[in-house]
Amino acid sequence: MNKFTPATNKFAPAKPAGARSVDEITGSRRLRRMRKADWSRRLVQENQLSVNDLIWPIFVVEGRQVREPIAAMPGVYRLSVDLAVKEAERAAKLGIPALATFPNVELSLRDETGSHILDPENVINRATRAIKDAVPEIGIITDAALDPFTSHGHDGILRDGIIVNDESVEQVTAAAVIQAAAGADIIAPSDMMDGRIGAIRDALDTNGFQDVAIMSYATKFSSAFYGPYREAVGTAGLLKGDKKTYYIDHANSD
Amino acid sequence: MNKFTPATNKFAPAKPAGARSVDEITGSRRLRRMRKADWSRRLVQENQLSVNDLIWPIFVVEGRQVREPIAAMPGVYRLSVDLAVKEAERAAKLGIPALATFPNVELSLRDETGSHILDPENVINRATRAIKDAVPEIGIITDAALDPFTSHGHDGILRDGIIVNDESVEQVTAAAVIQAAAGADIIAPSDMMDGRIGAIRDALDTNGFQDVAIMSYATKFSSAFYGPYREAVGTAGLLKGDKKTYYIDHANSD
Amino acid sequence: MNKFTPATNKFAPAKPAGARSVDEITGSRRLRRMRKADWSRRLVQENQLSVNDLIWPIFVVEGRQVREPIAAMPGVYRLSVDLAVKEAERAAKLGIPALATFPNVELSLRDETGSHILDPENVINRATRAIKDAVPEIGIITDAALDPFTSHGHDGILRDGIIVNDESVEQVTAAAVIQAAAGADIIAPSDMMDGRIGAIRDALDTNGFQDVAIMSYATKFSSAFYGPYREAVGTAGLLKGDKKTYYIDHANSD
Amino acid sequence: MNKFTPATNKFAPAKPAGARSVDEITGSRRLRRMRKADWSRRLVQENQLSVNDLIWPIFVVEGRQVREPIAAMPGVYRLSVDLAVKEAERAAKLGIPALATFPNVELSLRDETGSHILDPENVINRATRAIKDAVPEIGIITDAALDPFTSHGHDGILRDGIIVNDESVEQVTAAAVIQAAAGADIIAPSDMMDGRIGAIRDALDTNGFQDVAIMSYATKFSSAFYGPYREAVGTAGLLKGDKKTYYIDHANSD
Amino acid sequence: MNKFTPATNKFAPAKPAGARSVDEITGSRRLRRMRKADWSRRLVQENQLSVNDLIWPIFVVEGRQVREPIAAMPGVYRLSVDLAVKEAERAAKLGIPALATFPNVELSLRDETGSHILDPENVINRATRAIKDAVPEIGIITDAALDPFTSHGHDGILRDGIIVNDESVEQVTAAAVIQAAAGADIIAPSDMMDGRIGAIRDALDTNGFQDVAIMSYATKFSSAFYGPYREAVGTAGLLKGDKKTYYIDHANSD
Amino acid sequence: MNKFTPATNKFAPAKPAGARSVDEITGSRRLRRMRKADWSRRLVQENQLSVNDLIWPIFVVEGRQVREPIAAMPGVYRLSVDLAVKEAERAAKLGIPALATFPNVELSLRDETGSHILDPENVINRATRAIKDAVPEIGIITDAALDPFTSHGHDGILRDGIIVNDESVEQVTAAAVIQAAAGADIIAPSDMMDGRIGAIRDALDTNGFQDVAIMSYATKFSSAFYGPYREAVGTAGLLKGDKKTYYIDHANSD
Amino acid sequence: MNKFTPATNKFAPAKPAGARSVDEITGSRRLRRMRKADWSRRLVQENQLSVNDLIWPIFVVEGRQVREPIAAMPGVYRLSVDLAVKEAERAAKLGIPALATFPNVELSLRDETGSHILDPENVINRATRAIKDAVPEIGIITDAALDPFTSHGHDGILRDGIIVNDESVEQVTAAAVIQAAAGADIIAPSDMMDGRIGAIRDALDTNGFQDVAIMSYATKFSSAFYGPYREAVGTAGLLKGDKKTYYIDHANSD
Amino acid sequence: MNKFTPATNKFAPAKPAGARSVDEITGSRRLRRMRKADWSRRLVQENQLSVNDLIWPIFVVEGRQVREPIAAMPGVYRLSVDLAVKEAERAAKLGIPALATFPNVELSLRDETGSHILDPENVINRATRAIKDAVPEIGIITDAALDPFTSHGHDGILRDGIIVNDESVEQVTAAAVIQAAAGADIIAPSDMMDGRIGAIRDALDTNGFQDVAIMSYATKFSSAFYGPYREAVGTAGLLKGDKKTYYIDHANSD
Repeated sequence: MNKFTPATNKFAPAKPAGARSVDEITGSRRLRRMRKADWSRRLVQENQLSVNDLIWPIFVVEGRQVREPIAAMPGVYRLSVDLAVKEAERAAKLGIPALATFPNVELSLRDETGSHILDPENVINRATRAIKDAVPEIGIITDAALDPFTSHGHDGILRDGIIVNDESVEQVTAAAVIQAAAGADIIAPSDMMDGRIGAIRDALDTNGFQDVAIMSYATKFSSAFYGPYREAVGTAGLLKGDKKTYYIDHANSD
Repeated sequence: MNKFTPATNKFAPAKPAGARSVDEITGSRRLRRMRKADWSRRLVQENQLSVNDLIWPIFVVEGRQVREPIAAMPGVYRLSVDLAVKEAERAAKLGIPALATFPNVELSLRDETGSHILDPENVINRATRAIKDAVPEIGIITDAALDPFTSHGHDGILRDGIIVNDESVEQVTAAAVIQAAAGADIIAPSDMMDGRIGAIRDALDTNGFQDVAIMSYATKFSSAFYGPYREAVGTAGLLKGDKKTYYIDHANSD
Repeated sequence: MNKFTPATNKFAPAKPAGARSVDEITGSRRLRRMRKADWSRRLVQENQLSVNDLIWPIFVVEGRQVREPIAAMPGVYRLSVDLAVKEAERAAKLGIPALATFPNVELSLRDETGSHILDPENVINRATRAIKDAVPEIGIITDAALDPFTSHGHDGILRDGIIVNDESVEQVTAAAVIQAAAGADIIAPSDMMDGRIGAIRDALDTNGFQDVAIMSYATKFSSAFYGPYREAVGTAGLLKGDKKTYYIDHANSD
Repeated sequence: MNKFTPATNKFAPAKPAGARSVDEITGSRRLRRMRKADWSRRLVQENQLSVNDLIWPIFVVEGRQVREPIAAMPGVYRLSVDLAVKEAERAAKLGIPALATFPNVELSLRDETGSHILDPENVINRATRAIKDAVPEIGIITDAALDPFTSHGHDGILRDGIIVNDESVEQVTAAAVIQAAAGADIIAPSDMMDGRIGAIRDALDTNGFQDVAIMSYATKFSSAFYGPYREAVGTAGLLKGDKKTYYIDHANSD
Repeated sequence: MNKFTPATNKFAPAKPAGARSVDEITGSRRLRRMRKADWSRRLVQENQLSVNDLIWPIFVVEGRQVREPIAAMPGVYRLSVDLAVKEAERAAKLGIPALATFPNVELSLRDETGSHILDPENVINRATRAIKDAVPEIGIITDAALDPFTSHGHDGILRDGIIVNDESVEQVTAAAVIQAAAGADIIAPSDMMDGRIGAIRDALDTNGFQDVAIMSYATKFSSAFYGPYREAVGTAGLLKGDKKTYYIDHANSD
Repeated sequence: MNKFTPATNKFAPAKPAGARSVDEITGSRRLRRMRKADWSRRLVQENQLSVNDLIWPIFVVEGRQVREPIAAMPGVYRLSVDLAVKEAERAAKLGIPALATFPNVELSLRDETGSHILDPENVINRATRAIKDAVPEIGIITDAALDPFTSHGHDGILRDGIIVNDESVEQVTAAAVIQAAAGADIIAPSDMMDGRIGAIRDALDTNGFQDVAIMSYATKFSSAFYGPYREAVGTAGLLKGDKKTYYIDHANSD
Repeated sequence: MNKFTPATNKFAPAKPAGARSVDEITGSRRLRRMRKADWSRRLVQENQLSVNDLIWPIFVVEGRQVREPIAAMPGVYRLSVDLAVKEAERAAKLGIPALATFPNVELSLRDETGSHILDPENVINRATRAIKDAVPEIGIITDAALDPFTSHGHDGILRDGIIVNDESVEQVTAAAVIQAAAGADIIAPSDMMDGRIGAIRDALDTNGFQDVAIMSYATKFSSAFYGPYREAVGTAGLLKGDKKTYYIDHANSD
Repeated sequence: MNKFTPATNKFAPAKPAGARSVDEITGSRRLRRMRKADWSRRLVQENQLSVNDLIWPIFVVEGRQVREPIAAMPGVYRLSVDLAVKEAERAAKLGIPALATFPNVELSLRDETGSHILDPENVINRATRAIKDAVPEIGIITDAALDPFTSHGHDGILRDGIIVNDESVEQVTAAAVIQAAAGADIIAPSDMMDGRIGAIRDALDTNGFQDVAIMSYATKFSSAFYGPYREAVGTAGLLKGDKKTYYIDHANSD
């Protein structure tokens, strides 16, 4: 019957008396029907991933013509602003709607409070201006995050070994306004301080950036998946202790 | 007020007339409270991943004392049966409840119909017997899949370039009974033929393996995530055309 | 304040004492933000209509090089098989996954029982074969409906002024098998007889057409929207009385 | 058996061994039972469309005894106020609960800000007064929309090629109060500015029109269905670029 | 302020410092707006009771020109068949889709098993034939219930003081077929025996009454609301003990 | 088999070939099992109506030892305060948790604004004090409704034939405070004015009646069920026009 | 302010500037209102536990006038049949709808297969007959469980240290029929064998006990709450190993 | 067949004609499969109770080295602060995340208003300080409840036999701040006064305890389960009347 059953089939499973055929088992519901051809798969598929669903992340560093490989993310590079602009042009040509930029700040510019994030001339704000100038039709998402700017690699302001909530919110809020002034379309805070979204919204509206949006990161757990990102932004070596969001001795990183 | 605001803060965001404090923004709902200490995080966490939630995959090859690295999965090896038993002992000691075994079959044993899967002495069935003997307290999940046994790398029987449904189901069903006879606790078919679950259940029950369970793979899309698995079981180079589940010219692979 | 308010504004609405600004009314939830630019609309849009979501209807008539306009559907034509094939080629080139064909049968071929639907050489079955031959990569949906074939324009077999359920189901079922034999990929019955889906499935499976699918029309109410279709298939003038699905005196039309 | 099967039935579908009858297929659930007669259809129908569910749209133009056909909507006319009143009387006699009026404004009265909408003597407000006077028992819905009044055909105030939100809201709000003063029962803004509903409610309440309702249009996508409406109100030729709701260069129409 | 507050208002409630106005309390959500006029009530009402939602109950007795008042239901009468036909004509003229008939059987015709229900010439079956003859366009619902036919007034067959389930189902099923043969469109069993619906369906289908429907009574609790019905069908004086559905000594009466 | 089938059974229903028994039809799910005995009915019943679920309505009139029958509600009487106290004592003895009182006010005390409702010595307030004094353990619900006090029988203050919302709310609110002062435990406003619940809550709290509850009537449609109540409180003859809630000419009653 | 604040209050909490009162905090929603008095608690309480919700468990032993205390359940006793009848009479007098009986079998009567459960004269069946005889109006629930009858205390038949499923089901099914024959109204199997409910239903129906119900125990986890029950039925000392439901070495107890 | 069926099986249940096997009854769904072994139970179990889910209650009394047994809770003791610290150390070593402390206050320190709860040196506050000092890594939950401190045993301030809501809230709020100052991490009020949660949150925030959490007790019914707790905290003998939450004469006791 089954002409494919080879001679090496040393084991013949007992056929039950009322053994059912595939048609009996499935009641003629053969779900492979609509998967059989390209046209029928296209006709019935419910989701279609397109270029409109993509955001292009760019890691930015100081310098010119810099293109540093990131070991943990093969094929991904840290780029200087001039090359980041080329990348943005490539993304626009592909129809990708938006970029998300992340800085890798020189260690000498990092301090306790991440104050360099407030410098309108820092690498992220310069990248925003250069990209907006060259590729106005692409959206720019900036990471309003302190961790690439702090000497301890945590995403907030530390006092007595504790990440203090309200001062961290003030610092992130000020950074958000500066990034919006540089041309950012969407501000993406990555800390988890209480009240940051409302504070950023208030500050953006008052400073005339009502059209700048805020993009919330999803809840972040203490996950090993953040390792490559830490290498990319250069905080991997700075963090001490474990990575949990806490108050005492250690602070919450990303 | 904010003694942390550094001198380098060159930009002072305008404070709105009715600027709200974090307490006003959050209505005193400070969600970080319960994340502040180790004890409170432990008290409120809803999910706790334990060793009981893990299954240990083992890739098995012929030979003795063989330990081949798998390039696409750093730190994972193909093991000969003797080393697979050691791995199983290690898993049992760690409290891991079950193993899932996958073969990398010699090319000379692969044919059009994957007939070697029906050999009670193939590497998977020998591994099952050896592990059950040495570590009876661990569960064994075997992959009732044709693709590591076929010369074309597809997970079914090809006829005129089409994966034929009902003959593929018969072949997989026979393999399931043989694997159960070798001692497998859970049969995991990975093809997507119509009616295979019912056919395997019928055959297992009729042959006296009512206590052997069947584990369904979730729906599989045409995803790049299967690449490393293909390298591990040695089908990557065999497949031609794209990987979609279809009837004509190509067949559905895993 | 509002420099746009023109001199012709003869009516100044009283401003309420506590009149609210748009920001106060919306709580800074300005939903137009994400609608402001092309990139942000693309980023947030949830649905994207593509060519894969379309089915191309073709009305077929006897003859060669025939292209009759349909008054009720400007820009739509009844085509002879040779032109229908051109249309199918055009559709395939555009990436449209499937066609749906509908006949306009000569009046002399229509009779009480719509028997011409069972003729393997009728215009629909010839169109199916011709299109499959020329454009194998496109799917074909055929209307397993009696109304274009009956002299009374109803979608079933009439006896004593009643559409008889079970005989109508037999007729439609036979037509479905003939259409599948001609190469149809999807059978679309449009009558509303009880039990027709199960009967067609049984017949297709038994005759070896397990891969031919059945497409159910949604529930049809007595709607004026069917008028243009009736003109296209040439039943508009045949129907008597109102169009409701009933038993006595009149029969259910489409 | 089937006495209707004609001689031309050249194809006899194979009857499966255990071929099921319609009763077996449906388990005696013959859903046509309750559709068989007029009385049973009336007894079981869940929805009944009545005159109370209808709103009668009237397109109004200047002049007397004017009755201009609208090409895109065969059978629909633009009417001068005197004929609109006749139409309202006809509607009332039929029991239709409410009218919705839309103007077709002379091009010479259209300007950048749509200021003519604020004229209590414009054609819409005169129509409202005339209809209320003649047919007080019918409700009147007025379209608080700028597009029939602007020279660019967009539904808001343009500045530097952008539809400015807050000034547009002010203009629409003023128009709403004027329309309510003329006797409108329901104000139907059709723009999509942020905060317009709250602003109109505030203004109506403060000016003593607490009983005047607001009817929200459903979310409007960029749809070809709005074409006929554009012809009816005379904005079709004015709009440039595409019709999407956006900020830059083009403005949102309808 | 409130010019309606009369002099007799001897009690002046303290006004709170921040006493809120109705507008503040409701946030301008004045729900009475749409209830204010006839046209707006018609426009927004969700349900509309029509003649199509009604079923006309008729109590039938032997005789000619009999019209007996039912004390517990003022304005309702028991009618002889000739008058019941008149009533049916009146109902049809009003557009009422269906009648439900209930008999009041002479005591001499009642017995232990309600055997008179099986007489094709009983008053209910004669009424059905007469009404169908005179008013074919109205639907007829007959009560397939034993209680008006049993000498003990219970809705089943009693044995040793117990209502026996399966014999009662047989009796009701036979009655249903007889009623369908007389022309009933819907059979409405009112007992609560297990399995009666399936048994009636089987019997109707086998006897060629596939188009006759079955209407299930909703679950009946031991309610005082059934009192008037009992008087109408003349079982009120026959029942002993309480009215609960039970097995021993008493039987379930509707 | 069925020994109960009597000789008069002139019609033998055809037994279908595969006629099913009741056990086959029900799959042995005989739901009557748990209804068979008193103990099993008690064990499985889900709802149990007790005296705690009842509220005792009392209609109160002036006078002593008055006991007027209410025609539309046989067995219900209008009672003078002395007898209402006896009724309250009876209710308390039965364990009924609360009374709801409704007045029948002398016509001479009714006026346009229902001002007598504000008299702390009206029959309702005297009844409340008398009952609280005699039966402190029973709760008293008073109807804060104007209709028994107005000369037109509507439940609000009329101006130009319209029930004016805000003045009506003020009047009802004042009445609620007076009723609470008399000892009412629950205030039950029956009008449908916008904002009345918030206004009554504000007033009760400010006047120190924070423990007095408010009981909302369910939405009231224009129903004939209110007829007997209208007779009881003596408004039946006063109302003109239909009973719908509206603004013009007529007012909403109860 | 707070006249209750005593002198010992050494700590004065700072009052915030905008400290809110309880009314402000709750928005006047004072939920204690309806809990204030007995009548209002009774009026609003949703659940009321009555005697109808109770089942009275009785532990039965051999002998006469035996009344053994159960240490783990103070106040509960093992009773001989004569006293169990007295207990049943007491329960019936209190209106308790049903009893659940559990045996404590003499060790000498326990064996490997719990065969004594099949003795129609065992203590449980004698208790059922005696109680039914004396108190026919109370329902009797019997535990169709092997554990009080097996020498190993497990709730099934052991073979090679495994509880065998299908033989255990047969034994429990036979016991159920015997208990029903003795007069039990509800059979309550407490084992967790696959398929036992269907098997018991089949057996009861075939033996004429269609009115005997089956009561499923809820899913039982490995809980310490079963300890007292084990002492009561005398299996506590018999069980070896842990109590989990398993196959090998140990069996699932209750 | 069943070799276990013993000779004592005196009753052979009739096997029904079509008696089904367990496989037929269950359709081969043998749910015991995954319960058969330790590894499979671990693999499929959904819930796992760990030490992180536990809170350790400690009852504290004055004195040193005091260890008083609590009769109603065998194995639980009232401990003096020095021993409570030992208990806390034991809990921490076991990994238990938090303690909940409850005082048993000397009768001489109890008064009408429970004023001793406000003493920063009371036994609870001293315990908090001592435990925090010795075991900083464990969380402390304190019961902000008046009942262990009042001479009447009720959980609020009594005036004229009524528990007054707002003064009770003030007292509990002050106690919460004092407990937080002593080092409590979570405040757990057990009264049911309206508005207490908001009031405690306000007071904690204003006094700088924003990180102190509030834990709400679930709704408490009038349950006998609270008896042992009352003995533990020494209020059992103080309470008079029943335990329901009410206003008059008696007060709500937890």
